[in-house]
Amino acid sequence: MAPILLNCAGKEDEDYIKPQLHVKNPHLDSMEEDILYHFSLGTKTHNLPEMFGDVKFVCVGGSGNRMRAFAKFMHQELGLPGNTDEITDICEGTDRFSMYKVGPVLSISHGMGVPSISIMLHEMIKLLHHAGCHDVNLFRLGTSGGIGISPGTVVITDKAVDCFFRPQFEQVILGKVVIRSTELDADLAKELSQYASEMPELPTFIGNTMCTSDFYEGQGRLDGALCSFSTEEKVEYLRKAYNAGVRNIEMESTVFAAMCHMCNLKAAVVCVTLLNRFDGDQISTPHEVLTEYQQRPQNLVAQFIKKRLGLIV
Amino acid sequence: MAPILLNCAGKEDEDYIKPQLHVKNPHLDSMEEDILYHFSLGTKTHNLPEMFGDVKFVCVGGSGNRMRAFAKFMHQELGLPGNTDEITDICEGTDRFSMYKVGPVLSISHGMGVPSISIMLHEMIKLLHHAGCHDVNLFRLGTSGGIGISPGTVVITDKAVDCFFRPQFEQVILGKVVIRSTELDADLAKELSQYASEMPELPTFIGNTMCTSDFYEGQGRLDGALCSFSTEEKVEYLRKAYNAGVRNIEMESTVFAAMCHMCNLKAAVVCVTLLNRFDGDQISTPHEVLTEYQQRPQNLVAQFIKKRLGLIV
Repeated sequence: MAPILLNCAGKEDEDYIKPQLHVKNPHLDSMEEDILYHFSLGTKTHNLPEMFGDVKFVCVGGSGNRMRAFAKFMHQELGLPGNTDEITDICEGTDRFSMYKVGPVLSISHGMGVPSISIMLHEMIKLLHHAGCHDVNLFRLGTSGGIGISPGTVVITDKAVDCFFRPQFEQVILGKVVIRSTELDADLAKELSQYASEMPELPTFIGNTMCTSDFYEGQGRLDGALCSFSTEEKVEYLRKAYNAGVRNIEMESTVFAAMCHMCNLKAAVVCVTLLNRFDGDQISTPHEVLTEYQQRPQNLVAQFIKKRLGLIV
Repeated sequence: MAPILLNCAGKEDEDYIKPQLHVKNPHLDSMEEDILYHFSLGTKTHNLPEMFGDVKFVCVGGSGNRMRAFAKFMHQELGLPGNTDEITDICEGTDRFSMYKVGPVLSISHGMGVPSISIMLHEMIKLLHHAGCHDVNLFRLGTSGGIGISPGTVVITDKAVDCFFRPQFEQVILGKVVIRSTELDADLAKELSQYASEMPELPTFIGNTMCTSDFYEGQGRLDGALCSFSTEEKVEYLRKAYNAGVRNIEMESTVFAAMCHMCNLKAAVVCVTLLNRFDGDQISTPHEVLTEYQQRPQNLVAQFIKKRLGLIV
C-alpha cells in the first residue's frame, strides 16, 4: 500500500499564528456531548473549563505511580498550600489512565506504546480544547534504553524517529497509510537543554529518540520469548541506529510528536536511559538507583516550570 | 520496505508434537538470570516453578481492575478455600501490569494496544517456560466495538485481521518487516462456542476481529481530536470491514494470536462489544450496563474452565 504524504507545512503554518491549541475535527462542534471515555470525564458531567481552564503545563509518562509521584513533587516545588495526600486521581472512575492536577500542572499516565498514548492524547487534547486552555507546553517524561551513553543520562529528543530511523509517524486511516511529521518544538528543547546545563548533577544529551512498537524483538533484545537473530546482528542494528543519531529507544515518541505538531501544541520528550544497550538487554540496576534515575526528567521539567512561572530566575 | 514472508508451517508443525509451550529463543538457555522487568519477577529472586508450575489457564485483559475482579470471580466459581480479599497482585512491585493467581488460573492485565500486550506476552511466555508449565490454554477477555451486531454480544474470534482485513501481523525486527500468521486454535473457539450455546443469557457470535493501532482515526471514529473524513467515508470503511467478516474491532488480537501461534500456546480471543459502530462512536451506555457486558466473556471462560476441570459436566 503506497503511503500518502501529507504536506503539513501549508495550513499548519497559518495555525501557528493562533496562540491556542486546536483540535482538527470539524465534527466535534456538532456533538451535543463529548464523553472522554478513557478518562471517565465528559462535557455534560464535568465543568471542564472550571476544572482545567488554568492548565499551562501537561506532563505525561507511562506509569500511573510515577505520574502521581510527579504531581506530589510539583506540589512541593511550587510551594502550593495543602497536603500532598489530598492530591487525588481525577480519572478515578477508570483504571485506564491516571490524572493529577497541581496548580497549572496536569500530570497524566499513558501506559506503554503508541496505541495507548494515542488514546490518551486524543482525549487530553479534546479536554484542553473543551476547557479553553491556551499557551500549553507538553512534556513526555519517560524511561528508555540508551545507545552508547551511560545509564542515568537524560536525553532531550531532537528528532523522534521510527525503527527505520525516519522522522515520521505512519497512521492508518480508513485503510490508507498517512505519513505525519514528528517535528518537535526546537525552542523548547533548547530551553530545556540550557536549564540542564545549570544542573551539574543531571547528565543530559540532545539526540534522536527511536520509537518502536515492540520492547523485545523490535528493539533488538536477545532476551524475549522470541529471538531469531545473533548478538552480532543485534549490535550491527544498534550501531546503525547510533550512526543515525539515535541515543535512546522508547515506545511513544513518534505519535506524541506527530499529534502535538498537528494540534499546535509545543512539546518536548525528556527520557532518562536505564541501561546502555551496547552493554546488555536486561534492566538489572537496583530498584533504588532506577528510582533516582526516573526522578531526573522530573527535576529538569520542574526547573523549567518554575522558571516559566517566575519562581526562580 | 518489502515484507519477508516467514513460512510458519514447516518447523512449527514439528513443534506441535510436543505438548509443552516453548519459547523460541536460543539465547535464553545461556542466561544466568532472567529478570521479567515489567512483572517485577525474576528467576533468581522468585521460585517460578513453585509459584506457577500448576497453571493451566491464563486469562488476560486490558484493565487491572477487571482482571482482579475476574480472579475473585474464578475463586468463587472454583469453590476455593479462603477469602477473596486475600488475593493479592503478584506484580505489586510495579504498576505496569497486574497479576493474580487462583488455583490453576492466572489472571493478568495487559494495558491497551499491541506494544503493551506484546511486552506482557513475552514475559508471560517466559514465565510459563521457566515454571515448566504445559498444556496451558490462553484467553484474551476483552472489550471491543461491534460492527452490525447488538451491544453486549460476545464475539469469539475466528480470524484476527489487521486494518487492511488481512489475517497477519507485521513485526519489525532489526529494521526488517516480518509477517506472521494470526491463526488461532479452531478447536478452542469451537468448544467455547458450544458452551456459549448452552448459555441463553449470553448472545455469542463467531466472527473476524479487526485489530487497530489507534482507537479514533484508526477505527474510523468521528469524535477524536483529529478527524479528516466524512460520516459517509467512515460508514463505507466499516461496511468493507463487515463484508470481510469483521464483527468487532479491538487493539490487541493480532499480536496475541501471532505470538501464541509461534509459541505453541492454544489461544482464543473472547470480546464483548460495547456499542454498534454503525450507530455511533461514543460509548455512552450507563456504567452498570457496561459492567454487566464486561462480565459476559468472563462467564463464558469460567464455564470453559469449570468444564475442563470436571467441576460441571
